[in-house]
Amino acid sequence: MDALKIKSLIKHLSKLNYKKMYENDFLLTWEKTDDEIAAVFAVADILRGLRERNVTTRFFDSGLGVSLFRDNSTRTRFSFVSACNLLGLTVQDLDEGKSQIAHGETVRETANMISFMADVIGIRDDMYIGKGNAYMREVSKSVLDGYRDDVLEQRPTLVNLQCDIDHPTQTMADMLHIINTFGGVEQLKGKKIAMTWAYSPSYGKPLSVPQGVIGLMTRFGMEVSLAHPKGYEVMPEVVEVARKNAAASGGSFTQSNSMAEAFEGADIVYPKSWAPFAAMEKRTVLYGDGDDAGIKALEQELLKQNAKHKDWECTEALMQKTSRRTKYGEALYMHCLPADISGVSCKEGEVTASVFDRHRVDMYKEASYKPYIIAAMMMLAKFKNPADKLAERLECGCPRVK
Amino acid sequence: MDALKIKSLIKHLSKLNYKKMYENDFLLTWEKTDDEIAAVFAVADILRGLRERNVTTRFFDSGLGVSLFRDNSTRTRFSFVSACNLLGLTVQDLDEGKSQIAHGETVRETANMISFMADVIGIRDDMYIGKGNAYMREVSKSVLDGYRDDVLEQRPTLVNLQCDIDHPTQTMADMLHIINTFGGVEQLKGKKIAMTWAYSPSYGKPLSVPQGVIGLMTRFGMEVSLAHPKGYEVMPEVVEVARKNAAASGGSFTQSNSMAEAFEGADIVYPKSWAPFAAMEKRTVLYGDGDDAGIKALEQELLKQNAKHKDWECTEALMQKTSRRTKYGEALYMHCLPADISGVSCKEGEVTASVFDRHRVDMYKEASYKPYIIAAMMMLAKFKNPADKLAERLECGCPRVK
Amino acid sequence: MDALKIKSLIKHLSKLNYKKMYENDFLLTWEKTDDEIAAVFAVADILRGLRERNVTTRFFDSGLGVSLFRDNSTRTRFSFVSACNLLGLTVQDLDEGKSQIAHGETVRETANMISFMADVIGIRDDMYIGKGNAYMREVSKSVLDGYRDDVLEQRPTLVNLQCDIDHPTQTMADMLHIINTFGGVEQLKGKKIAMTWAYSPSYGKPLSVPQGVIGLMTRFGMEVSLAHPKGYEVMPEVVEVARKNAAASGGSFTQSNSMAEAFEGADIVYPKSWAPFAAMEKRTVLYGDGDDAGIKALEQELLKQNAKHKDWECTEALMQKTSRRTKYGEALYMHCLPADISGVSCKEGEVTASVFDRHRVDMYKEASYKPYIIAAMMMLAKFKNPADKLAERLECGCPRVK
Repeated sequence: MDALKIKSLIKHLSKLNYKKMYENDFLLTWEKTDDEIAAVFAVADILRGLRERNVTTRFFDSGLGVSLFRDNSTRTRFSFVSACNLLGLTVQDLDEGKSQIAHGETVRETANMISFMADVIGIRDDMYIGKGNAYMREVSKSVLDGYRDDVLEQRPTLVNLQCDIDHPTQTMADMLHIINTFGGVEQLKGKKIAMTWAYSPSYGKPLSVPQGVIGLMTRFGMEVSLAHPKGYEVMPEVVEVARKNAAASGGSFTQSNSMAEAFEGADIVYPKSWAPFAAMEKRTVLYGDGDDAGIKALEQELLKQNAKHKDWECTEALMQKTSRRTKYGEALYMHCLPADISGVSCKEGEVTASVFDRHRVDMYKEASYKPYIIAAMMMLAKFKNPADKLAERLECGCPRVK
Repeated sequence: MDALKIKSLIKHLSKLNYKKMYENDFLLTWEKTDDEIAAVFAVADILRGLRERNVTTRFFDSGLGVSLFRDNSTRTRFSFVSACNLLGLTVQDLDEGKSQIAHGETVRETANMISFMADVIGIRDDMYIGKGNAYMREVSKSVLDGYRDDVLEQRPTLVNLQCDIDHPTQTMADMLHIINTFGGVEQLKGKKIAMTWAYSPSYGKPLSVPQGVIGLMTRFGMEVSLAHPKGYEVMPEVVEVARKNAAASGGSFTQSNSMAEAFEGADIVYPKSWAPFAAMEKRTVLYGDGDDAGIKALEQELLKQNAKHKDWECTEALMQKTSRRTKYGEALYMHCLPADISGVSCKEGEVTASVFDRHRVDMYKEASYKPYIIAAMMMLAKFKNPADKLAERLECGCPRVK
Repeated sequence: MDALKIKSLIKHLSKLNYKKMYENDFLLTWEKTDDEIAAVFAVADILRGLRERNVTTRFFDSGLGVSLFRDNSTRTRFSFVSACNLLGLTVQDLDEGKSQIAHGETVRETANMISFMADVIGIRDDMYIGKGNAYMREVSKSVLDGYRDDVLEQRPTLVNLQCDIDHPTQTMADMLHIINTFGGVEQLKGKKIAMTWAYSPSYGKPLSVPQGVIGLMTRFGMEVSLAHPKGYEVMPEVVEVARKNAAASGGSFTQSNSMAEAFEGADIVYPKSWAPFAAMEKRTVLYGDGDDAGIKALEQELLKQNAKHKDWECTEALMQKTSRRTKYGEALYMHCLPADISGVSCKEGEVTASVFDRHRVDMYKEASYKPYIIAAMMMLAKFKNPADKLAERLECGCPRVK
């Protein structure tokens, strides 16, 4: 990225109103204004541009980024670590298996005990409906109280690294990839994106990606088409968000039970498996009751249900139905990775190997935005004047690798 | 903290004699002189003051802090990481489960192999009587030899993060909390502190906190009252230390088997469960013999013994017996956390929920001193002239968050 | 190390041709030219000299070193962390147990997903013949493609932390220890080194050390003598490398089945257990087939085979056969550690306790070179002009501990 381009991004950033992001969390994209969303994209692009030019963006001389993962994740873990490293924060994991948190400590107490030097807390908790986002808010309130009570020297702000409702770092990275692929946000009016269910031989995949996609992608004047087999409905609250967003942005939001219909003329397709919302609610209750037999029965039931929809696969035939207007001559294919690739990672899956292969590099690029998106969310939460800070860095050109 | 206050703390520090702390370990508080103890408090307060003012205290451009935990701990782990981060050290855990240390390597060899770039080693080893502190001394001797033999470029100094005898980072944090709560160390003469046993439904809690408390708090002219049921005696060597300290400081040290007597007129109360010293000695032998049946039998025996003393709970009635002279209108309630709270974390425990709730924020503050205490111990071990270093930082005001 | 000595090392470095190391991996010593090998030694010594003088060698203001360990290792882990820390990189482990890599992700995808901010990747994968080094090359190709496709902002270069074929960070550290012990590489012509098998009661030790030793130590005009019982042959490809090296360097490479013959007049002895190459190949197939019974049977067979050679122990009597010309009055005894010490870590093992004890400090020094060797490999891969960078640092003298 050349210096002029970075300069113009900083100028764009400085005109946006993102004051309320300072000393605040990033939990759901639809809690943020359009300017705030635009500010995240701008900062992410600027940080990437500076790194490309070997300009250091270490804004913290010391400080901790605390990560709290309720389940395992290579990618999100590395993205968070990368984002923290880019800004100068050291990551300390709270591995619940290893710690006393598992033995009945209250969230409030633990949240404070791990935060004495924490500038940022990143949480991934997507397992149980009604729990993950609520847990994040409880942690947020606890450390805010701790800060106000002079227990903590700084307010640790939270970044949602995936919850039961939204997956903002993923969908914002997805969106920035779309924006940069199509040549700017102003190019997206009227473009069609198909967020569709796809068959997977595995069970219980989270709803946060489809929900996050319809909750975010409806804000840019696009035609957002959600398709899934009957019984795979997402949370009604998020559908409502998508409807309102589409109306406000001059786009549309439609739902159907046909993958082909959704793919028809689509500029972007995002076929991905997820579990039915109602089943996930049921599972949450079963887990709460410690009903192992019930969980196993539910799992079998869900696998059987999935198996009825093996035709929900992103095939070459389906890709043929998509728009020819893109630079690919077909829709941009997206996935949050890892995908279930038919004949590669499983017998029958979400996508035909040839489609996946053709779009692999683009998907890697899609993923590569995530560390910058997370770092941007942090910067906007920790600095009053990020535009000035970034301009200073561009000016000085102090090297990252000296 | 305002700059003048920090300046006066630095001036106070510069008058203390702490020369012997340089290139030395911190293993037991009673091995340190009064000036050395005072220096730790001063440096801890200064480091906190500088951080509040966003002044960087990164004194290491690179370097490792090695942590060696023999059991799990969220709080101590985060405190050590926070302290290292504050000074610029990166933490590397020696997780024995993951490493070859479990397969017969000698302490000497491992200690050297992990220390090539180690500036500090933090060890927590509190499981077995007669082992933890001895292990620390073995590691210390090993790396000192390594340094003298030109194997290591620097001498890694040790910080005791809890052993079978003492828990200096905890009790020093506790003490600094007391000092700052009561308005200075000179305000403590004649104040009464009750270190008492309390009932817990769990088994085998370490003795390091009560021992550490009577070994340290007797140095400030306070009336230190240790109370526990018969059979819950602590190590006689530490009782001897407490007696001598009390005599030297013009305070007192008394022992009783009545919680009410200890609470009577107390300005500070610290009710906390621990296992009987004799039982812990027995357990150490059983572990050494690999006698699992014996360990289980001992556990049942101890739980039964504990259950006879459910009346050792910090209740509102007991708090009524404490001093009204404090700013709380009752004693300052302390705990190293996590506590067994009756009706919250267990059916019957160490403390009534209402007492715990009322003092929660103060306990969080108590805990918040620990990272600064650890960092202070490190600074005094690694720098010949910490007062000058700290004064330079205050002067330059170089920001932590840039 | 005095400044003049460092200066002369930098001058020596600047005359070497190591251009091809820039933006390249370090996978096998015999893929590197003599100048490149010499450059690693020079940079390692310079880095150590600067650290001794408290000069910072933090060349990265931020950046990640990713470590990927297929089995557990305290020493290698700490060496890699130490090397990264010395240069300013933060280590992030890819713990495969914890991550989705175990669930069918392709190497290509994972390699890219963990590398968005990775400057270096260190891999240890020594378990299966034909797999470890091949895996490293697959990762290397994947991230090079990612870099060329603009997925990654930098090319992460690889360091082989031990594979099925070679153990370059170990043998280069061993070699630097030899060079510095004997007073320079020019003193080594005609010196005899005995790389011999030794008895161990454990099973399946990797071949990478003996292979690495004969592949590297044959390059300096020494007489390299490899000895092992029949049936403990190493990879024929590496024997071929050793033969060619010896011929080119004016030294010799001989093989025998007698420990005494190898020790005769040796200036350096390196007695160490390993598994037969053919058995390791068999094991790899059994693992591939998931044949647990076969693996157990093979293990028993190998332990029985080992037990026939308990006389392959480095005893005082054998040490008596070695050269008296060294400063020890006998051969320099080497080991990569940990060793199986007879009567200490096992009943009967690789070495008599008295021999081990006498050489312990030297072995610790041998090990202490490893972090510097790793850091040198990194520097030569990441910087076009390391000699200039190092000269700048020596000049400025900016302190590591400020």
